[in-house]
Amino acid sequence: MKKLSILGVTGSIGTQTLDVIRKSNGELKLIGVTANTSVKKIVDIIEEFKPAYVAMMDSKSAIEVKKHCKETNKKIEVLDGIEGLNKIASLDEIDIVVTSVVGMIGLEPTMKAIEAKKDIALANKETLVVAGEMVMKAAKKSNVRILPVDSEHSAIFQSLRGNDINSLRKIILTASGGPFRGKKISELQEIKVKDALKHPKWNMGRKISIDSATLMNKGLEVIEAHWLFDCDYDNIQVLVHPQSIVHSMVEYTDGSIIAQLGAQDMRLPIQYALNYEERKNLVAETIDFYEISKLTFEKPDIATFKSLDLSFKAGKIGGLMPTILNGANEAAVDLFLNEKIKFLEIPNIIEKCMEVFKKEVSKELNLNNIIELDKTVKDYVVNNAVN
Amino acid sequence: MKKLSILGVTGSIGTQTLDVIRKSNGELKLIGVTANTSVKKIVDIIEEFKPAYVAMMDSKSAIEVKKHCKETNKKIEVLDGIEGLNKIASLDEIDIVVTSVVGMIGLEPTMKAIEAKKDIALANKETLVVAGEMVMKAAKKSNVRILPVDSEHSAIFQSLRGNDINSLRKIILTASGGPFRGKKISELQEIKVKDALKHPKWNMGRKISIDSATLMNKGLEVIEAHWLFDCDYDNIQVLVHPQSIVHSMVEYTDGSIIAQLGAQDMRLPIQYALNYEERKNLVAETIDFYEISKLTFEKPDIATFKSLDLSFKAGKIGGLMPTILNGANEAAVDLFLNEKIKFLEIPNIIEKCMEVFKKEVSKELNLNNIIELDKTVKDYVVNNAVN
Repeated sequence: MKKLSILGVTGSIGTQTLDVIRKSNGELKLIGVTANTSVKKIVDIIEEFKPAYVAMMDSKSAIEVKKHCKETNKKIEVLDGIEGLNKIASLDEIDIVVTSVVGMIGLEPTMKAIEAKKDIALANKETLVVAGEMVMKAAKKSNVRILPVDSEHSAIFQSLRGNDINSLRKIILTASGGPFRGKKISELQEIKVKDALKHPKWNMGRKISIDSATLMNKGLEVIEAHWLFDCDYDNIQVLVHPQSIVHSMVEYTDGSIIAQLGAQDMRLPIQYALNYEERKNLVAETIDFYEISKLTFEKPDIATFKSLDLSFKAGKIGGLMPTILNGANEAAVDLFLNEKIKFLEIPNIIEKCMEVFKKEVSKELNLNNIIELDKTVKDYVVNNAVN
Repeated sequence: MKKLSILGVTGSIGTQTLDVIRKSNGELKLIGVTANTSVKKIVDIIEEFKPAYVAMMDSKSAIEVKKHCKETNKKIEVLDGIEGLNKIASLDEIDIVVTSVVGMIGLEPTMKAIEAKKDIALANKETLVVAGEMVMKAAKKSNVRILPVDSEHSAIFQSLRGNDINSLRKIILTASGGPFRGKKISELQEIKVKDALKHPKWNMGRKISIDSATLMNKGLEVIEAHWLFDCDYDNIQVLVHPQSIVHSMVEYTDGSIIAQLGAQDMRLPIQYALNYEERKNLVAETIDFYEISKLTFEKPDIATFKSLDLSFKAGKIGGLMPTILNGANEAAVDLFLNEKIKFLEIPNIIEKCMEVFKKEVSKELNLNNIIELDKTVKDYVVNNAVN
């Protein structure tokens, strides 16, 4: 039996992780969960899964959860704030932590989990984007596994299985192309929030949906892939594949390409990460190639979708530049979702920030500097982007 | 350095194996070669690769090769006949044998090589089709590897790499569909030999080209896959994929599909088998997905291409039935190539033989019975098919 904590249990990945646990025939046991403010959802999870620990980021919510536990006579330790998250991530009882919180908040508990020698099922993008070097070094030192939960990185991870990492020549990272694939700049001037939220293939949160529409999501994945698989940016190729059946591929030194394909169901990579190296039985539907008549591929349009290009640039510059890229993007997406800026301003804001803050890039890469610069960049975007 | 013998060195696979050796920077060393009657080609190979042993199936050809060696002062042991092949396959000096002879003649030396504890790079289809059970048992007993050289089986083998064979749920064996894909029975009545020899994707020998046109080639590969990967026939799916980029796939119990893709170049699977488990540098061109805009898939038309269906049937019946299938096919293809029968008679002859000889199926599966039944079936086809 594997014991786990889920950070961000009420979100999209968290909820799907619960379903994987539900279908694991008792082989996966939920010990700790965290959420932000979703008291009702947490109460339901407590009732169904009976975790021993709960942490609410919001302290008022924690009080409500405590109240529920007292009233229903449950011996559950209820914590709050970042300290609560850090504790849930590093519990003695657990083997693995699913880091499915969204945003920078995931970074510190992930580092705590690594220090406590817990394997990480990584679904928090920011962890590797802003702190890839730090995280991979710590994981190596603690001898823990960073197991990707993203469908693309899981595909790469699966395609590398059994092979020597030194024989990897190229990562081919597939991208659906998002809802605006094929459109030109002129057609994207007046994009509405609701249009950008309509993802053709995956059902995701709001922030990730916008990132998918700008191709920033793929850009962040490029940086993640660089750190996860120790692959030069020049050897990472983004390939638009609208059907989202091929989840990614790797090319080896002998010219052979291995690809992982599957249904569009996040429970597959979650299950793979949680049970690694064992493959368990199907939780999702499978692919019928007699039904799928074709798979198509095309080059991404980086002239229109500048965020992808900016991600490669930020990744190659390294240091704190991905923190600037990510912070600027988060703030800009937030402004767009609140209808304060237009869709095409998102990459322009990122580009501007990469220029404005470039002297910060070479500062020491540590948790404090990352968190501080992230805040500075976001404040700058909020104060300067809306005129 | 790995030392090898090649059985059938002057054929298509043999010649491409030589090119892999040529590009191996001395890591592969050719010790023994065999051919049938191609004295001139063998002389060229002797000059370039300086093998220590040569065997010619044809004894007159062996005398000519001996003469050349004497005249040019080369200390090469020149042998002949099946005894010669058997010796070359089991030399003390070698680590691995490439079995690229065509037809039943490959079976005995392959068994000798296994008994002598040599790994097998298997390119001789008949070995597994007629004697899969016997060969796999012997390989297990001798603790040697049967490494597939066929592009499809190499793809499956690569896709299984690093995984537990018990988590394999399904093999998806791809097929180009051959030159007559999409045609109906009525359009195949008057097929000429030259039409059937035009394979759209692979450059192959004459017999295999006809097998590809009837889909018998895929049928034989189904039986090979059954034995190589211990997979039930019901879990082997043939998928027509005209671009021949996806060389085959496997589906795991968790619903994940792993596929191997690559250029249409037999040197890739040859190199993979000879260097397994190491991946060496590229000998061939690679795939550019920005150029390949689509991959298509369809269900095979077994009503038109009956040989594929017959292969599944023969495989499921087992015992000596695949020997009947294979022998009838070889004889029928030979008659077709000599313009004695029509294209559509090939599957009919196979079906007839499977009925006529069905009482032979349960005889003991051994080398003698296989060779004898193969001959009986072929004689029957020659004597009865042409009226």
